[in-house]
Amino acid sequence: MITKEAIEAAHERIKVYIDHTPVMTSEAINALVGANVFFKCENLQKAGAFKARGAMNAVLVLSNEARAKGVATHSSGNHAQAIARSAKIMGIKSYIVMPHTAPEIKKRGVISFGGEIFECEPTLESRETTLQEVVKKTGASVIHPFNDYEVITGQATVAKEFFEDIPSLEVIIPPVGGGGLLSGTALSTKYFSPATSVFAGEPEGADDAYRSLKSGIIEPSQSNSIADGLLTTVGDKTFPIIRDHVKGVITVSDQEIINAMRILWENLKVIVEPSGAVPFAAVLKAKDTFRNKKVGVILSGGNVDLSRAFKLFGL
Amino acid sequence: MITKEAIEAAHERIKVYIDHTPVMTSEAINALVGANVFFKCENLQKAGAFKARGAMNAVLVLSNEARAKGVATHSSGNHAQAIARSAKIMGIKSYIVMPHTAPEIKKRGVISFGGEIFECEPTLESRETTLQEVVKKTGASVIHPFNDYEVITGQATVAKEFFEDIPSLEVIIPPVGGGGLLSGTALSTKYFSPATSVFAGEPEGADDAYRSLKSGIIEPSQSNSIADGLLTTVGDKTFPIIRDHVKGVITVSDQEIINAMRILWENLKVIVEPSGAVPFAAVLKAKDTFRNKKVGVILSGGNVDLSRAFKLFGL
Repeated sequence: MITKEAIEAAHERIKVYIDHTPVMTSEAINALVGANVFFKCENLQKAGAFKARGAMNAVLVLSNEARAKGVATHSSGNHAQAIARSAKIMGIKSYIVMPHTAPEIKKRGVISFGGEIFECEPTLESRETTLQEVVKKTGASVIHPFNDYEVITGQATVAKEFFEDIPSLEVIIPPVGGGGLLSGTALSTKYFSPATSVFAGEPEGADDAYRSLKSGIIEPSQSNSIADGLLTTVGDKTFPIIRDHVKGVITVSDQEIINAMRILWENLKVIVEPSGAVPFAAVLKAKDTFRNKKVGVILSGGNVDLSRAFKLFGL
Repeated sequence: MITKEAIEAAHERIKVYIDHTPVMTSEAINALVGANVFFKCENLQKAGAFKARGAMNAVLVLSNEARAKGVATHSSGNHAQAIARSAKIMGIKSYIVMPHTAPEIKKRGVISFGGEIFECEPTLESRETTLQEVVKKTGASVIHPFNDYEVITGQATVAKEFFEDIPSLEVIIPPVGGGGLLSGTALSTKYFSPATSVFAGEPEGADDAYRSLKSGIIEPSQSNSIADGLLTTVGDKTFPIIRDHVKGVITVSDQEIINAMRILWENLKVIVEPSGAVPFAAVLKAKDTFRNKKVGVILSGGNVDLSRAFKLFGL
């Protein structure tokens, strides 16, 4: 079990390598929602997402011997860049397995941090086989994007900071994909702000967390949403934490995500990617649940091509 | 003359009504510029621009009697919204004279803060006549967008905060339009960080400050740039301060402004309006001047229609 002390230690460990991101508010958004909404801007985090925290923690806790051989992962998203950045900071190699179909911008992000890309087919099987080959060849340590206790502990520092800056939040709501951020948020809430309720926003087209929470066991789901960071299924390390500590998962359609994203861009003047707008879309959808409450929304990432955003907005 | 104590008092006075905006950095931008660049995010300020500071200070220093009659200004830009917001906070009326050609989004901004709009022709003469009529009818106090010592003192708090958060900046660079932010920045630099050099960025198509600084007297100029917040000419209160304390004005083309704006959106994940990207465009243009220096760039505002921004980006 991840302890309070483990989260505090992780925060101390990663502090100098990450940003203490700002919390923003908007009078117009408060009026629109009918609640007092605070936004934790992890879209402004190093490498553009909260993933910088878990990756940094996981790399820092490796033994010197293990670390010297480098780190590896398979990811086509923000975790890939976060791992490459953490490796660069530590002066070690990073090996990133990515489907050859991954967007150029994601590849460039990894390369800009000195990561070495290994292309594979866009199937889970090909990803895992390729990753095993890389590990066999290099001896690198694999850092899973979410189903890893050190990664979860790192992601837990988002909520810890949030509670430090804005005490007595009545609700905290991150998005859920594989559940690293959500399980970390749930644990930090339990330890640092136990009166706060934890909800999560999830795309309708990848609603495994919603259905798993209902049935009590991990349920598979399709993966069909513009929120490309949330298409994965909760893992056997993240789900039990979610099951025990999360009050509810609210699912939203792609159009609701786009609307929420545009409101955030226009009112907060920050760039939020589709996945990052999911919890705010959930707050807009379930206004009655949050009315007059002090609500903490985690904007998890800001990595979206402007041309893609432009198309989503229909401009 | 505006004293150090006056700036400190203004900062105390307005503190609870404005945001202490974050300072952001980007490893990619540092590599691109070859310098250590810090961005003061006034685009994330209340009402989307630094103008909230000067407007709030000017409204707060009015006598109770004067304030009760309301405040008035002519502006089609960020100052209009800032005045309307300050008036709303104080529970008084605001009267905003705007050309009937002003964009709908700017009008909506003023109305959302309860401001009353008086439409005029898009000429300086019509603006001033209309403003005089409004004042005659209402007895409201006029708050000029920049040529006002209380406004300048309020804008000076941007640089004061910046120096508090990032000590020993070697350069500070805001944009210049009418010169309220630039003269305030120059004074705060003199008092709080005298070793720092003050530069400014200005659009080529509205280069009155550049030419005035060269000749030593206020020079008129055309007003032709996408940086719609910087089309005004420096005033008789702002220019003497600029002349005495500013090291140089760097002019940039519209294309350079658009390029800078896009780099900021993509790397900092924040929305900056064309005027707000002008100083960074100047830093990119005059890289040699800033090489290896600790440079403080003021991102002055974030109020731009997404559809307009996407058109500027050619998307």
